[in-house]
Amino acid sequence: MAKIRLGIVGYGNLSRASIDNLKNFNDIELVAVFSRRELKDTEGIKFSTIDKILEFKDKIDVMLMCGGSKDDLPKQSPEIAKNFNIVDSFDTHANVDSHFLNVDKVSKDNQTVGLISGGWDPGVFSLARSFFDSVLPNGETYTFWGKGVSQGHSDALRRVDGVKLAVQYTIPKQDAIDKVKSGENPKLTTKEKHLRECFVVAEKNADIKKIEQEIKTMPNYFADYDTVVNFISEEEFKNSHTSMPHGGSVIRTGKLKEDISHTLELNIKLGSNPHFTSSVLLCYVRAVYKLAKEKKFGVYTVLDIPFSYLSNKTGAELRNSLV
Amino acid sequence: MAKIRLGIVGYGNLSRASIDNLKNFNDIELVAVFSRRELKDTEGIKFSTIDKILEFKDKIDVMLMCGGSKDDLPKQSPEIAKNFNIVDSFDTHANVDSHFLNVDKVSKDNQTVGLISGGWDPGVFSLARSFFDSVLPNGETYTFWGKGVSQGHSDALRRVDGVKLAVQYTIPKQDAIDKVKSGENPKLTTKEKHLRECFVVAEKNADIKKIEQEIKTMPNYFADYDTVVNFISEEEFKNSHTSMPHGGSVIRTGKLKEDISHTLELNIKLGSNPHFTSSVLLCYVRAVYKLAKEKKFGVYTVLDIPFSYLSNKTGAELRNSLV
Repeated sequence: MAKIRLGIVGYGNLSRASIDNLKNFNDIELVAVFSRRELKDTEGIKFSTIDKILEFKDKIDVMLMCGGSKDDLPKQSPEIAKNFNIVDSFDTHANVDSHFLNVDKVSKDNQTVGLISGGWDPGVFSLARSFFDSVLPNGETYTFWGKGVSQGHSDALRRVDGVKLAVQYTIPKQDAIDKVKSGENPKLTTKEKHLRECFVVAEKNADIKKIEQEIKTMPNYFADYDTVVNFISEEEFKNSHTSMPHGGSVIRTGKLKEDISHTLELNIKLGSNPHFTSSVLLCYVRAVYKLAKEKKFGVYTVLDIPFSYLSNKTGAELRNSLV
Repeated sequence: MAKIRLGIVGYGNLSRASIDNLKNFNDIELVAVFSRRELKDTEGIKFSTIDKILEFKDKIDVMLMCGGSKDDLPKQSPEIAKNFNIVDSFDTHANVDSHFLNVDKVSKDNQTVGLISGGWDPGVFSLARSFFDSVLPNGETYTFWGKGVSQGHSDALRRVDGVKLAVQYTIPKQDAIDKVKSGENPKLTTKEKHLRECFVVAEKNADIKKIEQEIKTMPNYFADYDTVVNFISEEEFKNSHTSMPHGGSVIRTGKLKEDISHTLELNIKLGSNPHFTSSVLLCYVRAVYKLAKEKKFGVYTVLDIPFSYLSNKTGAELRNSLV
């Protein structure tokens, strides 16, 4: 069977993880990676600048959009969707619907297929929230994130005077999770749900007390949270804090019959956040490829696509081994 | 908006739970319950004998099949699918594909829509197994059942001489779950995964030791398992062992990048097994209703239907609140 011919737009963490991850998806082959910069082809990877992307119009089945949600995807996804089927990981929850409508119009006008907001949140967690909401109608859903690295908060730490290296882990509070699972439907503030733990390498002779104080009182990022600051050596940082783990839980409790409680819970624990994110996106590359073959043009979210489209197994194989 | 007009075939535990559960699904209304027996209409429930089902051909949108998988559904589902859209909970895993093919032919020939093997296993757990298998390609999936009542094993207990009342709980072993979650991909026998705990009310003057011995050595049911037998009073039985809780977990661990482990886990804890099963089935009633409106005739499993079809929320509502 012909392989799915993949293009990747962007060359950051997610793009690199996707290239690495293709070894787990032998029905997908990489044709080219598109970047604004001129990059030299390396072993097994052909690079092209993004302004030459139309030269690949008949050579690529699906384009994986690996740009950022703030500045890149709102423009790139509708633009690229004029000529290619796309999969993106647009993750600004508040703007998912407007992004959907933007790309949907372009896709329908140009007979392409798009999947927006893939990944794990939005993505896997959206699936859990929606499914749990349907099958347990009277209840409350809670999302917890972590333990994992928050890029935005790590960046904020690095802007503090005297900080050389830093990483911030978002950690869900076990007592909040226990309260939720007990079925008492607690009202929880963000502070009550998550703890922020920081690992900081200070510059030589920096004022440690001052750094800690500045972090803990930083508005928006840390002031409203329980924040723990650990100072460590550069060596320890490099040994223990450079991987990108993440994870989290979606939990819903509810009652179908008076006083009888039901709990549904999805937990994910990711050794490498970008690898898992790309793995989910590559499954939706398969789906978009199949939908395009079926001429079902337009844009989809993860809630609009059956799981059979994500698999490389046939319907009979799925029914015999996994149903 | 017009409500979905529902018929129910059968009048056992699942049927009764579904009728009770309709209060949580105000977009679905019950038209009639079909039974082999003549039953008197009760408050809010119209009964009909199953031989008169064709009189309801234009009065019912979807028929919920609540018969057993061993004797009823293999015949009833294809028969009823000639004239109605159906949802069933056929749960003999080994025969899912042949049941699918049987009903699919009838549905396509007669332009109806069917969903087979809904519920939680098969059903919710099938979704988890398939999704986890796709997004974490190199790994192992484990299914644990319980803590919950096994009907077949409880029946077996009640056939033992001197047993008046009995219930058997299947309980997953925590050390097996811990081994799985550690990511070491253990080979586990069924005995290593589950414990069988029995609560027995003995007849007056029965030989307790003999009952326990007979249970623990019963071939197929208990001999190959770690089995615990507790003798209790009839009063304790009635107070503590008449509800129908169940639950379980689907866990997959795998590596996307060398040596970096990922874990995906779905846990469900059900206060009332028949209520949750019916809740899942009623969501697929919605889906079958929509698919029939779209004239997408034929049979589906849970893997073939997007989650948006299960919800009574619009696409925009889902994108704004749950993606």
